[in-house]
Amino acid sequence: MSAAVPSPPPGEFDLIARCFHRHRAPRPGVPLGPGDDCALLAPRPGMQLAVSTDMLVEGRHFLSTVAPEALGHKALAVNLSDLAACGATPLACTLAIAMPRGDADWLGRFADGLYALADRHGIALAGGDMTAGPLNLSLTVIGEVPTGQALLRHGARPGDTLWVSGRLGDARLALEGFRGTVRLPGEVFDRVRLAMERPEPRVALGQALRGVASAALDLSDGLLGDVRHLLARSAEALGRPQPLGLRLDADALPRSAELAAQPLALQRLCTLAGGDDYELAFTAPAGAEAAVREAAAQAGVSVTPVGRIEDETGLRCVDAAGRPVAADYLAFDHFRG
Amino acid sequence: MSAAVPSPPPGEFDLIARCFHRHRAPRPGVPLGPGDDCALLAPRPGMQLAVSTDMLVEGRHFLSTVAPEALGHKALAVNLSDLAACGATPLACTLAIAMPRGDADWLGRFADGLYALADRHGIALAGGDMTAGPLNLSLTVIGEVPTGQALLRHGARPGDTLWVSGRLGDARLALEGFRGTVRLPGEVFDRVRLAMERPEPRVALGQALRGVASAALDLSDGLLGDVRHLLARSAEALGRPQPLGLRLDADALPRSAELAAQPLALQRLCTLAGGDDYELAFTAPAGAEAAVREAAAQAGVSVTPVGRIEDETGLRCVDAAGRPVAADYLAFDHFRG
Repeated sequence: MSAAVPSPPPGEFDLIARCFHRHRAPRPGVPLGPGDDCALLAPRPGMQLAVSTDMLVEGRHFLSTVAPEALGHKALAVNLSDLAACGATPLACTLAIAMPRGDADWLGRFADGLYALADRHGIALAGGDMTAGPLNLSLTVIGEVPTGQALLRHGARPGDTLWVSGRLGDARLALEGFRGTVRLPGEVFDRVRLAMERPEPRVALGQALRGVASAALDLSDGLLGDVRHLLARSAEALGRPQPLGLRLDADALPRSAELAAQPLALQRLCTLAGGDDYELAFTAPAGAEAAVREAAAQAGVSVTPVGRIEDETGLRCVDAAGRPVAADYLAFDHFRG
Repeated sequence: MSAAVPSPPPGEFDLIARCFHRHRAPRPGVPLGPGDDCALLAPRPGMQLAVSTDMLVEGRHFLSTVAPEALGHKALAVNLSDLAACGATPLACTLAIAMPRGDADWLGRFADGLYALADRHGIALAGGDMTAGPLNLSLTVIGEVPTGQALLRHGARPGDTLWVSGRLGDARLALEGFRGTVRLPGEVFDRVRLAMERPEPRVALGQALRGVASAALDLSDGLLGDVRHLLARSAEALGRPQPLGLRLDADALPRSAELAAQPLALQRLCTLAGGDDYELAFTAPAGAEAAVREAAAQAGVSVTPVGRIEDETGLRCVDAAGRPVAADYLAFDHFRG
């Protein structure tokens, strides 16, 4: 008897091949793309690899109503933002996806959004996995950085200036709009929801800041919560038992005209503890201002000095006149959030 | 006013630090472990990196009653099995986990199982992510393989022998025991469920087969379904429009005494299409038998010749006497399964 080898069922493998094999051809740095047990990467000599993983869950990291293209963009963008924070050049990513049903239309549109951003950054979707289950997207990104030049969360010193890129708080303002806690005119809502749904990872800025910034991280849980890690890790590296301190100028935090038109309390919430910003926060010696501004110009991204790292542990949040600003926001936490 | 920087909430970050920071110290090949935006890997000169991602969903890839230690083992094992199939040496992994509540006891036991296997393979858990959501585990493993020496799914040629490692079918027998479609005495059930819950990735065998095997993959969806990929990819690489053919000796498929004591139809199902085996299937030229056996001895793993790659497309499944065996099983598919 000669039975035909069963043809591929119109499920998992068919969907993967249809939606996620656009980067199968070998490319520089990625000699083997998707379709085998592993992908193969060929980092250049002298390079270390930066690796980061982020998982996005429906109803937590994105609304179920989001356009699949936007979700594909955002799933990759939040991961690239981690590479940006390290000053790495993106090389490849993998995608694991669980979804209730194999919906080829939805997946194709999701893939469109993901590949558009991947192609802009010259990065291959090199492999992954697909299964049935509650909607869940887990991406791992891999980038290259010259040995010893990665930007890290530690390295800040008392006296360093704290900078942030771009503008903060629009994503949170959009979320409050979705939640109905604030009423936004249609065109305002349309502009700020772009910040929430289409964050632009600061990859070029991260690379330009190598050798300039003393420490860096990306802002995903809100400035106050995230910068805590930088203060703690930098103190650890200096052998100090307490985190470094921060004097933060709340009025200096860069914000859009749309956010600046909101009540001050909402501006404070959105800029200090908004979450989902995907901007870089980084420190540099006070004397490095010109180098920071040059790196920013090279990357085409605005940067703003917003505070100063201090010896004395604790956060001193002030307004433009130097008056204290209450800043007792808790960092976002997925098991509290 | 000098407000204290908010202390870490007893949630996400606390759980990560408590359960998943055992590999924070720098180690060879992994100069920066978890705790920053990215981990840093330093592959050795002349090495390519093999990368693979697998996602495990509760109720699909594991039963909700599984011991967390066993799940930690299995989540990493199924990923290492992909590195094994490429002949790569494991270097690091990342873990993204979604769980309904931050259960420190469960997580600690899960971590125990994962780290035990990681330590046995000298691999660092270098980073990851944690969030609230339906239980989902997504791992990415990264290994090193000398440039040009990775085992791939293509490379098989007509005349090559098909080999499998270890024994097939026990994991499926255990699953049928859980499902109640077969009654297994307690001690039999205990032995075969080890195959399901504690698969041993064939990492040493994969490495020993570099330069010996012509093609390889790991068995996760069942032999017949998986080997289809090898036949199709190898034909593609030879420029053939149809998959290569396979003559498979169903009686030669290695099985445990426990499985061999079951009705023949159940043995066939479990060995031909069982799934969850995490053994290697690989091809080698007929003249390479001694080299294959030497590699297997070196790795301390049994290997068995089970068939022959043929020019004529299609599967010809026969018994020991050469009589045809019905083998019309469909490959496991997550959107059909």
